[in-house]
Amino acid sequence: MGDFNQSVVLEAIRQSGEGSSRIELAAATGLSAQTVTNITRRLLDEGLIREAGRTINGPGKPRVTLRLVADSRFSVGVHLDPALMTFVLLDLSGAVVRRVGVRTPAMEPPRIVQAMAATVDALITVSGIDRASIAGVGVAAPGPLDAEKGTVIDPPKLLGWNRVPLRSVLAEAIGLPVVLEKDTTAAAVGELWTRRASADDSFVFVYLGTGIGAALARDGEAVPGSTRNIGEIGHLIVDPDGPPCTCGSRGCVEVVCTPQAIVAQAERAGVFRDDRELSDVEAVDARFTELCQRAADGDELADGVLTRAAAHMAVLTAGLTNMLDVDRVVFGGPFWSRLAEVYLREIPDRLERASATRAVRSLPVDGTVVGDDVAAVGAGCVVLDSVLSPRASALLLDH
Amino acid sequence: MGDFNQSVVLEAIRQSGEGSSRIELAAATGLSAQTVTNITRRLLDEGLIREAGRTINGPGKPRVTLRLVADSRFSVGVHLDPALMTFVLLDLSGAVVRRVGVRTPAMEPPRIVQAMAATVDALITVSGIDRASIAGVGVAAPGPLDAEKGTVIDPPKLLGWNRVPLRSVLAEAIGLPVVLEKDTTAAAVGELWTRRASADDSFVFVYLGTGIGAALARDGEAVPGSTRNIGEIGHLIVDPDGPPCTCGSRGCVEVVCTPQAIVAQAERAGVFRDDRELSDVEAVDARFTELCQRAADGDELADGVLTRAAAHMAVLTAGLTNMLDVDRVVFGGPFWSRLAEVYLREIPDRLERASATRAVRSLPVDGTVVGDDVAAVGAGCVVLDSVLSPRASALLLDH
Repeated sequence: MGDFNQSVVLEAIRQSGEGSSRIELAAATGLSAQTVTNITRRLLDEGLIREAGRTINGPGKPRVTLRLVADSRFSVGVHLDPALMTFVLLDLSGAVVRRVGVRTPAMEPPRIVQAMAATVDALITVSGIDRASIAGVGVAAPGPLDAEKGTVIDPPKLLGWNRVPLRSVLAEAIGLPVVLEKDTTAAAVGELWTRRASADDSFVFVYLGTGIGAALARDGEAVPGSTRNIGEIGHLIVDPDGPPCTCGSRGCVEVVCTPQAIVAQAERAGVFRDDRELSDVEAVDARFTELCQRAADGDELADGVLTRAAAHMAVLTAGLTNMLDVDRVVFGGPFWSRLAEVYLREIPDRLERASATRAVRSLPVDGTVVGDDVAAVGAGCVVLDSVLSPRASALLLDH
Repeated sequence: MGDFNQSVVLEAIRQSGEGSSRIELAAATGLSAQTVTNITRRLLDEGLIREAGRTINGPGKPRVTLRLVADSRFSVGVHLDPALMTFVLLDLSGAVVRRVGVRTPAMEPPRIVQAMAATVDALITVSGIDRASIAGVGVAAPGPLDAEKGTVIDPPKLLGWNRVPLRSVLAEAIGLPVVLEKDTTAAAVGELWTRRASADDSFVFVYLGTGIGAALARDGEAVPGSTRNIGEIGHLIVDPDGPPCTCGSRGCVEVVCTPQAIVAQAERAGVFRDDRELSDVEAVDARFTELCQRAADGDELADGVLTRAAAHMAVLTAGLTNMLDVDRVVFGGPFWSRLAEVYLREIPDRLERASATRAVRSLPVDGTVVGDDVAAVGAGCVVLDSVLSPRASALLLDH
């Protein structure tokens, strides 16, 4: 229980932000004053916390404020996306110290992993941080994953990635512990960390990347699922009139809600001058940006396409919230910021009308507070969890 | 912590079935030998457990086997279904001591609640059990519910039930504590109790009643959701070619997978001689039985209708398991036994092919071990949980 209680105290200090006295920590954790005193002495010795002033609060001894030493430990978060690899260096408070984004190279997976390792190394070296203070590297990758083996199985959007042992290869190349997490779940962890979520925070995180995925936070913790593959929602049907899908059905999320699908709808609607179908991820990304820009500039055709996309997304989020019974919806991922205006205008009312629980509560819809790097930040937070939090048992480290 | 540890020990004794010694209990619960001794003395005093023989196991003192006294406490489980009200009396082991089913009367909700109270009273009286030994009454009702107020809000299949304060009215009429639970979640609790589920059992329970609902068990416990309304899946789309739905979409579970919808499909397919559309729940039930019987007798038309229904149900279960990342699917509810043969023939392969995690695990599909009364039994188990289990904090009792 020693390690567990230590991480509970450290997490309470982190959550407090401005710092916390031993008495406040005892109250917040339910631990005895003596236990808190012993644990904080150990944390002070290890340099994870420091004494930051005294508060005089009525008669009696002044209280010493204990605060996290943010630069005592670090982690690296990596997000492997079909288009972009994002690398962040986080300090122990979860703040981004340094960030780099590189285009995902068009190479064989083993060489991409080597490139990934080199970028992580460079990130650490440039930052001037002692490698010994880096707790590990978290990698967020598209599912499905084989969490036990640490392999990326065969994500539909990552061509050529077939049972690639990402975790062990990367750990060997970097010489640091590596943890592999599904991109969507990593995003939810990043959201929870950054918001300093309360213990009853329950939400579904809808991740808008090259593919669409979901993650679940229940009572302040990310729920990974039995095989850490929760949130594979690509073949939920959202539009009975939608195009055929590779799965044999029609109108799945995969062929209706993805950026590629929305760009195709815009092409069919005549938003663009030339109408060749695009599948290359970068070309889709550029056209998607153009579509959103046109809508923002008042182009009715473009706005109509995004409004219909929002309506389909509302069908999806209603399906998810009615099934999961969570309190709110959080959107994020690399395509979110471009869609935010139209989606936040269109989705909340539609979701409210379709909510099975509209009689007992409303369902707020928000964008992530973390921004476009949420999956990379979350992957780094998964590693910090292993230092900080009582949820360390959920970790699957390889080193 | 005293009550918590007591319920942990009692639950461990129940789970052991054949009984358990103090040393085994200490090992199973992680509590000290002294704590186990103190708690078991209290449980013996209260008559909840008894000493049942001694085992000599090598040198040293013989071990005393402690066993649950099943008839020391009881609970009543009630299932309110649009067609049928089921009442069960359970002993502390969760076994059904007595059962009665009555047609749901065509009356105003307040009078139905009075009839419910009278039946509960009669059930207790006829059983000859001391009322003081009855821990409470659990009621399973169709969602959505207002769990805080203990009201049934406006279930689509329960006409006239609009914010009926079922819990408080029933508690007043019976003079016993009443807990209200969603029918589907109650069913999952019944399944967990009856299987003596292991701590890592995670499944989605698909409940086939007048409506179709789902429940979720994660790591051996039912997950109720933020408002105890988890599993509202009636408007997930399973058939893009399906009929229009009241929600404005098409091909929802509600208009494709319910018994009424399947009967309508059979009528359109010409399975029956006369083809008037039926909506009365009893008439639908009779026709549904006839349809299933014909399929079992080798009628190809009838079998074709059920096979298509199974295909739609496979789309639903794949959507649920891919989203939730659970390890298996359990079917139950009043219509399950009639569908079991065709569904168990058709669904597993289809589900396997559509599973996002087929590379890492298979997804077994089973029927409930509890039988048709699973929701009523589960409602009774929810009450027993309050006596037995460390999950008592999840209870919402009214008395």
